[in-house]
Amino acid sequence: MALQPRNPDYRAAVERYVGAQEYLTLIGVALVRIEPGLAEYRVPYQPAIGQQDGFFHGGVIGGVAEGVMGAAAATLVEAGANVVGAEYKVNFLAPGRGTLLARGIVLKPGRLIVCRADVLAVADDGSETLCAIAQGTMAAVKPSRG
Amino acid sequence: MALQPRNPDYRAAVERYVGAQEYLTLIGVALVRIEPGLAEYRVPYQPAIGQQDGFFHGGVIGGVAEGVMGAAAATLVEAGANVVGAEYKVNFLAPGRGTLLARGIVLKPGRLIVCRADVLAVADDGSETLCAIAQGTMAAVKPSRG
Amino acid sequence: MALQPRNPDYRAAVERYVGAQEYLTLIGVALVRIEPGLAEYRVPYQPAIGQQDGFFHGGVIGGVAEGVMGAAAATLVEAGANVVGAEYKVNFLAPGRGTLLARGIVLKPGRLIVCRADVLAVADDGSETLCAIAQGTMAAVKPSRG
Amino acid sequence: MALQPRNPDYRAAVERYVGAQEYLTLIGVALVRIEPGLAEYRVPYQPAIGQQDGFFHGGVIGGVAEGVMGAAAATLVEAGANVVGAEYKVNFLAPGRGTLLARGIVLKPGRLIVCRADVLAVADDGSETLCAIAQGTMAAVKPSRG
Repeated sequence: MALQPRNPDYRAAVERYVGAQEYLTLIGVALVRIEPGLAEYRVPYQPAIGQQDGFFHGGVIGGVAEGVMGAAAATLVEAGANVVGAEYKVNFLAPGRGTLLARGIVLKPGRLIVCRADVLAVADDGSETLCAIAQGTMAAVKPSRG
Repeated sequence: MALQPRNPDYRAAVERYVGAQEYLTLIGVALVRIEPGLAEYRVPYQPAIGQQDGFFHGGVIGGVAEGVMGAAAATLVEAGANVVGAEYKVNFLAPGRGTLLARGIVLKPGRLIVCRADVLAVADDGSETLCAIAQGTMAAVKPSRG
Repeated sequence: MALQPRNPDYRAAVERYVGAQEYLTLIGVALVRIEPGLAEYRVPYQPAIGQQDGFFHGGVIGGVAEGVMGAAAATLVEAGANVVGAEYKVNFLAPGRGTLLARGIVLKPGRLIVCRADVLAVADDGSETLCAIAQGTMAAVKPSRG
Repeated sequence: MALQPRNPDYRAAVERYVGAQEYLTLIGVALVRIEPGLAEYRVPYQPAIGQQDGFFHGGVIGGVAEGVMGAAAATLVEAGANVVGAEYKVNFLAPGRGTLLARGIVLKPGRLIVCRADVLAVADDGSETLCAIAQGTMAAVKPSRG
């Protein structure tokens, strides 16, 4: 499945989309990869985004999964369109430690964009553990004609 | 269904559980109600937890829904037990503005605790909009015998 | 929230919608209640829809939950529109025995219709157990202008 | 991730597990592949499992996805253990026509087994369309010591 971006400047558009979400700055998300139908976020651990045992909070992990699916979806929408989350589902597989590496991919483009995400926890020694998996729907909202 | 707490000090236990999650402090969550099998969080809007349009970020709304289901579950576990999220699912119904009021309830207690959550957006004039709904599974982790 | 049907003949439309789904006949679904934004199905147990322990198969329970959300959604769409499932999520709370009574309700109408469902297992003595809960999204597909 | 079966006779055990589910016979499921942590079902279309437009009913597709995740999970449990569904989530990507080919894989083994499923629709000319994706949790229930 070769997904084709509809916006030739999709990279810049996704960077703006991610940069405009202050919450992603708050939790320390870095956008580290953009391809048509794919995006990756990196999030180093800090206590402020932890839960009671010193791991990433489930709400952070789920939100990162949702966010990276949104970024993956944003690679495929037309210029000026917005992407908003409609629904998502997360399963937690292992406690989140170290650095999160979240990858979102688009499985069905269109007005409703169906995505999956894998969230890996990367330890200091580079070993990776699958920490969470997600799937969800993003909605492309057309630019208003103003 | 009258749910019975197994820990007579469940209120203090839930307050400790919520207070120990630094992420909830980061995003400004206040625990405003605890009953057996029920918990409520309030979260006032601030730009740091927003998305590109000035509404609550979906990851925040989903995380608050997950967190309040965890707190509801924590009202029913035995003394010293921990509660961790296993999985959850969120549907977004309306943009989140104003103040979030999230209510989690337990539908099935046990080792795997099945919960639902409603997240209302409360406007300055007090009017309420159903912003998101969630359901998920929390796992009760027994205290280690140390 | 008083949900208003857009089709004055919504009852007949939902009956046709349900009657046209042969799968619902195969598994013995009876449509027992229709209100604006609400529908109920009854499904008596028979071995052909069971799993390895003599209970309703999870796929049947999940499908009934999905189907009754579709019927609830179908009460609110315009005349001639079709309703198709976009996504759903089910949690199982107790083994399904006796007769299933599934209730779907609409929480957000529109082109994407967000619903919840409760599936009760009703024993021969009339006692009810909450067997499964679901939430999902139904899409209203406009009638083609032919 | 090389998943190791705990039951040396896992193939026969999965065949018995699938064969004992009468519902799977009702809808015409054939178990066509078993590997450690993986299972595949084939389901040819027949009107009795269709919806109002002549496609596979969403409840069938979701149930097949749930069922094949159960079969994948059953490859990894100890001899005599049972597998029951705890929860699942399905997104529909395209109408189901032709023959369904559903593949379930295990991403996390254990007492709670986290799985994903892809459901392809295979047309008469052999072309494949991704029809639905799912993720869910199966619970391994230990054999009773009788």
